[in-house]
Amino acid sequence: MKQTFAWKGNVIHTPECGRLELRPGSWLVCEDGLVGGVFDALPEKYRGIPAEDFGDKLILPGLIDLHVHASQYAYRGLGMDMELLDWLEHNAFPEESHFANPDYAARAYAIFTEQLRTSATTRACIFATLHRPATRELMEDLERTGLPCFVGKVNMDRNSPDILRETTEESLAETRRWLEESGELDLVRPILTPRFTPSCTDELMAGLGELQREFHVPLQSHLSENRSEIRWVSELCPNTRFYGEAYEQFGLFGGGCPTVMAHCVWSGEEERKLIKDNGVFIAHCPQSNMNVSSGIAPVRTFLREGQKVGLGSDVAGGAHLSIFRAMTDGIQCSKLRWRLVDQDAPALTLAEALYLATKGGGAFFGKVGSFEPGYECDAIVMDDAGLPTTRACTLAERLERIVYLSDGLPVAKCAAGVRLF
Amino acid sequence: MKQTFAWKGNVIHTPECGRLELRPGSWLVCEDGLVGGVFDALPEKYRGIPAEDFGDKLILPGLIDLHVHASQYAYRGLGMDMELLDWLEHNAFPEESHFANPDYAARAYAIFTEQLRTSATTRACIFATLHRPATRELMEDLERTGLPCFVGKVNMDRNSPDILRETTEESLAETRRWLEESGELDLVRPILTPRFTPSCTDELMAGLGELQREFHVPLQSHLSENRSEIRWVSELCPNTRFYGEAYEQFGLFGGGCPTVMAHCVWSGEEERKLIKDNGVFIAHCPQSNMNVSSGIAPVRTFLREGQKVGLGSDVAGGAHLSIFRAMTDGIQCSKLRWRLVDQDAPALTLAEALYLATKGGGAFFGKVGSFEPGYECDAIVMDDAGLPTTRACTLAERLERIVYLSDGLPVAKCAAGVRLF
Repeated sequence: MKQTFAWKGNVIHTPECGRLELRPGSWLVCEDGLVGGVFDALPEKYRGIPAEDFGDKLILPGLIDLHVHASQYAYRGLGMDMELLDWLEHNAFPEESHFANPDYAARAYAIFTEQLRTSATTRACIFATLHRPATRELMEDLERTGLPCFVGKVNMDRNSPDILRETTEESLAETRRWLEESGELDLVRPILTPRFTPSCTDELMAGLGELQREFHVPLQSHLSENRSEIRWVSELCPNTRFYGEAYEQFGLFGGGCPTVMAHCVWSGEEERKLIKDNGVFIAHCPQSNMNVSSGIAPVRTFLREGQKVGLGSDVAGGAHLSIFRAMTDGIQCSKLRWRLVDQDAPALTLAEALYLATKGGGAFFGKVGSFEPGYECDAIVMDDAGLPTTRACTLAERLERIVYLSDGLPVAKCAAGVRLF
Repeated sequence: MKQTFAWKGNVIHTPECGRLELRPGSWLVCEDGLVGGVFDALPEKYRGIPAEDFGDKLILPGLIDLHVHASQYAYRGLGMDMELLDWLEHNAFPEESHFANPDYAARAYAIFTEQLRTSATTRACIFATLHRPATRELMEDLERTGLPCFVGKVNMDRNSPDILRETTEESLAETRRWLEESGELDLVRPILTPRFTPSCTDELMAGLGELQREFHVPLQSHLSENRSEIRWVSELCPNTRFYGEAYEQFGLFGGGCPTVMAHCVWSGEEERKLIKDNGVFIAHCPQSNMNVSSGIAPVRTFLREGQKVGLGSDVAGGAHLSIFRAMTDGIQCSKLRWRLVDQDAPALTLAEALYLATKGGGAFFGKVGSFEPGYECDAIVMDDAGLPTTRACTLAERLERIVYLSDGLPVAKCAAGVRLF
């Protein structure tokens, strides 16, 4: 299944955060699914492998979406005048309840999967809903499409309407069954997904901790997104000093299994220390943080602290699936944070944003997001011919225009060494 | 030339700021170029006029771009890691110098004009460059295209490189000649355009004041955009209390002629009072204010004070020509300002953003930007069929999705009562 081939074009990646490696007119070699290297001329040993010359187009690592709600894709861009908790109650929860209906789920997930397939994203950490059959449907859709994603059946047994709430027992039993069935899939893997602390009782959290130790699966959730949410969590968990401890107390905060927390907009020093010590990934979702009035996460601080950070579209808190858009949103928000909040935290650069969108988030999946030899080969080919200019742009400038201006759709794409189109 | 016709569809406009008027399945009548009204059924007296039924599509007022640099369009999305003054010096000024070459100008302006023609924008206040022949070329391009815009030959006689600076005498003589020649055009009208205070000597400003009194033309410029710029202006004009006075002292701040100032991010109470008293329009350009690290303009304060406000793309400080994008950028930034700077200033709503994008900015052009009877008929038809959803959306929700998600291209458009496509 893993393929061997070579693509020629203007190859760009970011082996280190903040440094663009620009390789004009070079060959990217994929050998049995892994990057063999980037070469000025195709080495002798690769002569004869399937090769395609993309001419003057740009070849980048596939983009990584560390946080997206597949179930919200079909109604993105709605309810955007509401703040987070209102938006969940009036927009997200009623809509997610429809996924109890398999026909509805199939239609909605088909829209999402097709958009993700044609996008520049090669991998994503995805929230489904609490419905096991619909979650399975989404996983099979993605598996057929060739996108090596993590997908989570959501757990929620409190503080949501009757139409979108499980009992603790149901939630744990359905999660166990879903984990057992997920072994049949190859590319798409399960990830534990307690929605967020307000949605999960202590009993549910404890049970998920046991399941995680039994099945050794990663975990995704939300953390310190919005001030109203944080206040609520501190009321729900009076024994904790900060939000992260609400997960940590059940062993669900990076204890041995890869863990990614979305947002961390308001994570204080203690919480960030726990995130760092436990190797928890941060999914930075700048557009969503604007749309539901959460704020601006201190991404420069994250980088200085050596945190593991990637970008998330957070559809449908974010309205756009494009991680190119998440890059520009992240840069723009970091400029506002520097200007308005913290003059000691310079803005993200384009090269840093590309790192977050590729190798930064890719690390959650293993060796992913770079063209260094041995990395899984996720690549996209971008054509900027549709962006007319009178300027003779450098390769770095062409990248900048693609990030800011393109609609983000590649002309070719491979994920885990398999060409998708 | 002014046409009479009727369009049927789901008609939406904002006669008052913050209130959407939703008229599903209604007829918009254009009578000799002016709005005749919006009707549930086509009145008897209009039977027989050319009519088109756009079915389930949405009909909105044409969008207004109160601030855009046509000369920067062809290199938008570049240099975005720089702050304003560096960006001008290293990016904008060198590029604008090429407009001394008529061939270059023709190529660059052809790109801009074609993009504006196909966009949802029907009118704009446009900066060209200091080059009179190239500015004339742009005006003729726009005239042919049918876009009733204001275009300004830029004035700049100090603090720019030799390749992009006039002498004071040249600047005034060329401006006079350009104003005299502009009378030949019908739709496209000249607007005085001192670039900003740092680019214009007192002698130039005084001369422009005389020209304005002689020719009775409106004026556009930049105001209180960026903190470094404001410091610079206060050094250049030690006799002024705030930036606005640097224009006011030469009679160039709304003294009798319509005036629009871009940005006003950092306009204090005294400056805002002068803006209000003089009826100066504010062009709010949220994306540009992010990109060049200026900040977030207090748009809620503007609205409360009853200021005249519209939206600007500010290409190429902004990377996108779409005023739908300016609406969402404006909403998102206002949310961040509420969260991070001023909890007494609630975010813009979608209905308010649409008002700014239509009637708010349209007022600079006269009775423009609304479907009230007697308004000049600028209208666009938007098709949301390419935005798949599983939700049965209300008309207001369909508008929200078009604003947030569409690429902003209408399927039909008329400006000043003339159908463009």
